[in-house]
Amino acid sequence: MFYVTRKEHFNAAHKVHRTDWTDEQNLAVFGKCSNPNWHGHNYDLYVTVKGMPSEVTGFVMDLKVLSNLIKEKVLDKLDHRNLNLDVPFMKGVNPTTENVVMAIWNELKDEIQNHGCTLHCIKLHETERNCVEYFG
Amino acid sequence: MFYVTRKEHFNAAHKVHRTDWTDEQNLAVFGKCSNPNWHGHNYDLYVTVKGMPSEVTGFVMDLKVLSNLIKEKVLDKLDHRNLNLDVPFMKGVNPTTENVVMAIWNELKDEIQNHGCTLHCIKLHETERNCVEYFG
Amino acid sequence: MFYVTRKEHFNAAHKVHRTDWTDEQNLAVFGKCSNPNWHGHNYDLYVTVKGMPSEVTGFVMDLKVLSNLIKEKVLDKLDHRNLNLDVPFMKGVNPTTENVVMAIWNELKDEIQNHGCTLHCIKLHETERNCVEYFG
Amino acid sequence: MFYVTRKEHFNAAHKVHRTDWTDEQNLAVFGKCSNPNWHGHNYDLYVTVKGMPSEVTGFVMDLKVLSNLIKEKVLDKLDHRNLNLDVPFMKGVNPTTENVVMAIWNELKDEIQNHGCTLHCIKLHETERNCVEYFG
Amino acid sequence: MFYVTRKEHFNAAHKVHRTDWTDEQNLAVFGKCSNPNWHGHNYDLYVTVKGMPSEVTGFVMDLKVLSNLIKEKVLDKLDHRNLNLDVPFMKGVNPTTENVVMAIWNELKDEIQNHGCTLHCIKLHETERNCVEYFG
Amino acid sequence: MFYVTRKEHFNAAHKVHRTDWTDEQNLAVFGKCSNPNWHGHNYDLYVTVKGMPSEVTGFVMDLKVLSNLIKEKVLDKLDHRNLNLDVPFMKGVNPTTENVVMAIWNELKDEIQNHGCTLHCIKLHETERNCVEYFG
Repeated sequence: MFYVTRKEHFNAAHKVHRTDWTDEQNLAVFGKCSNPNWHGHNYDLYVTVKGMPSEVTGFVMDLKVLSNLIKEKVLDKLDHRNLNLDVPFMKGVNPTTENVVMAIWNELKDEIQNHGCTLHCIKLHETERNCVEYFG
Repeated sequence: MFYVTRKEHFNAAHKVHRTDWTDEQNLAVFGKCSNPNWHGHNYDLYVTVKGMPSEVTGFVMDLKVLSNLIKEKVLDKLDHRNLNLDVPFMKGVNPTTENVVMAIWNELKDEIQNHGCTLHCIKLHETERNCVEYFG
Repeated sequence: MFYVTRKEHFNAAHKVHRTDWTDEQNLAVFGKCSNPNWHGHNYDLYVTVKGMPSEVTGFVMDLKVLSNLIKEKVLDKLDHRNLNLDVPFMKGVNPTTENVVMAIWNELKDEIQNHGCTLHCIKLHETERNCVEYFG
Repeated sequence: MFYVTRKEHFNAAHKVHRTDWTDEQNLAVFGKCSNPNWHGHNYDLYVTVKGMPSEVTGFVMDLKVLSNLIKEKVLDKLDHRNLNLDVPFMKGVNPTTENVVMAIWNELKDEIQNHGCTLHCIKLHETERNCVEYFG
Repeated sequence: MFYVTRKEHFNAAHKVHRTDWTDEQNLAVFGKCSNPNWHGHNYDLYVTVKGMPSEVTGFVMDLKVLSNLIKEKVLDKLDHRNLNLDVPFMKGVNPTTENVVMAIWNELKDEIQNHGCTLHCIKLHETERNCVEYFG
Repeated sequence: MFYVTRKEHFNAAHKVHRTDWTDEQNLAVFGKCSNPNWHGHNYDLYVTVKGMPSEVTGFVMDLKVLSNLIKEKVLDKLDHRNLNLDVPFMKGVNPTTENVVMAIWNELKDEIQNHGCTLHCIKLHETERNCVEYFG
């Protein structure tokens, strides 16, 4: 089995907070990440698919195809947006890295299956020092 | 002459827009960077001071002192904030990287002079691929 | 299952050598890494915990809590120290990267369990080109 | 079990194409990667071995030994070469990253076994954004 | 004065050699960089312009405009190409990093002037460890 | 004028302290960097030379020659050593980054002149976040 990874990135605003809590409650639990007027990140996204290379092309999956798929299904909806307000597939979700990763997994899983590959891992770096991996 | 650089970082939300323009005008000029609900970045900040090393310490400037100064005067006001709304020294300023760099220069110049050094350059990376340097 | 990683770093001196061998024996086996007067590294440490996100916070583990735990239990004892001489939990241990990783694992495993998470991996980069991972 | 990784790199020319296809067919499937006059990359290669640290040395494998082995068996044959024309162990192979990774695995597997370790993974970055991992 | 830098990249094949020398002469002077069947690199290109920020936009130069200009005038001609054979503005030039940098400078200088800015520096990394800067 | 830079690295132990001060005095001024049993770093060294490319080779300076020169005059004396105890050209010098940079400048300046080039800058990163540049 081969594992092929494409790195993409997007820039977004967010705050980590629950809409059913007051600003004070959010501050007590989430600290400065709950700043009411938002903050933001350069997110680095790694999408890993697994499979066997095609006898014809030598590719598990054409990375240009994978990149376009990520662009269409994920980046066009997240990049230069507000994760709490602007993203249809994040509506009502507290945008912790864990929750963003799970939402991206759900956006991509079937699309990648339709291309004959299997989604293996979504890894998301919120900063150089903090990241989350999800394997479904 | 020696040049000593300290790298710091902060995470912030912003939008590039003029408050005296409509969203449509801002979109026409600034594109997706003017998203009304904000976006954000992990900013990497490089502060360079110049001088001769002290005969006593061998330092141009103690980098712990410089780091604390940057934290107090700059990071505590920008980190996990909204550059358009939350930062006293950015009030009324369109937060392009150029304008943020100039504002940081103004916050630090005299403070560093008070420590017997000369501020040489403020460099700010908005992304890995975009940066601005200002030498006063 | 989600995997959450925090990157930290420390700077330390060490030499790879056995105290029951002569300098010549150590040199023959460990080469320049056994330099009697020490050498040192900027170590990059990656601590990965696994679990399910809390329904309340959306976090597997608050990374500020994890960072503070690593600081208290590991970094405060290793950073700006000599791994052969200064570190209580490394006493009598030849500080190869493998042995440092296992010692850090032992310092953190129960502490992380006490926070309701499971330690998954300790990864340590001695240089950009050399690293060791340990999964317990 | 411990996992020890050594990073190496090489610079090479290649084109992704099948010799039994015309330039037009190759262009249709492989795009600009099939440029008839070649293009090239700075490849980053990560070789991971697994095992238990020796009681004597504290090493799973001496990374100087591993580095020399990679140099002799892989880098000396790939570095500053053309992957389609110059490399004995790549003859007749379309040099997709997947196929290069499998060929490197085959060059190293037994050699590492002869040193009492087990090859765990070959990871190859063609660019910062594209990589393939193979676990045998 | 402000200095604004945009980072771009391209992947290309080349060999360092003089067409009026034999392979043996080229090998004697240029070593493995003269491999007759080429080798290649992931080139990182940094283009720096200088100027004062516009009163209207707060930009020295819109980095999207600069990026598009670099793409049209430079990347479209170098990326996934052979620097010795495929590039109109490199015809007859031995593609050392110095010579590539000078050629890129000449392609961009007037174009950037036409946008009201001044080209300040072209920096090109052939590898992470080797780079050349040119200031005209 | 062209500026050509070669990046090298070395790993070394040191402590920032004055031998004519007590440990307490050193601790008061230099903090944890004066740890009596040393600490250490992975140093990244950038050597920049300037000149015009040769009409014959297209090189300002052959980077293999520059690399070998740095290895012989600097790295072989600093790498895997103690900067306070083991380095002939650092004897009696408090190894702040400033002082190490000046010492490296003095080791290389004439050697590079003898190869027909001019040393322009020595830049040394003690950590990713701290660096010093010296232009003579």
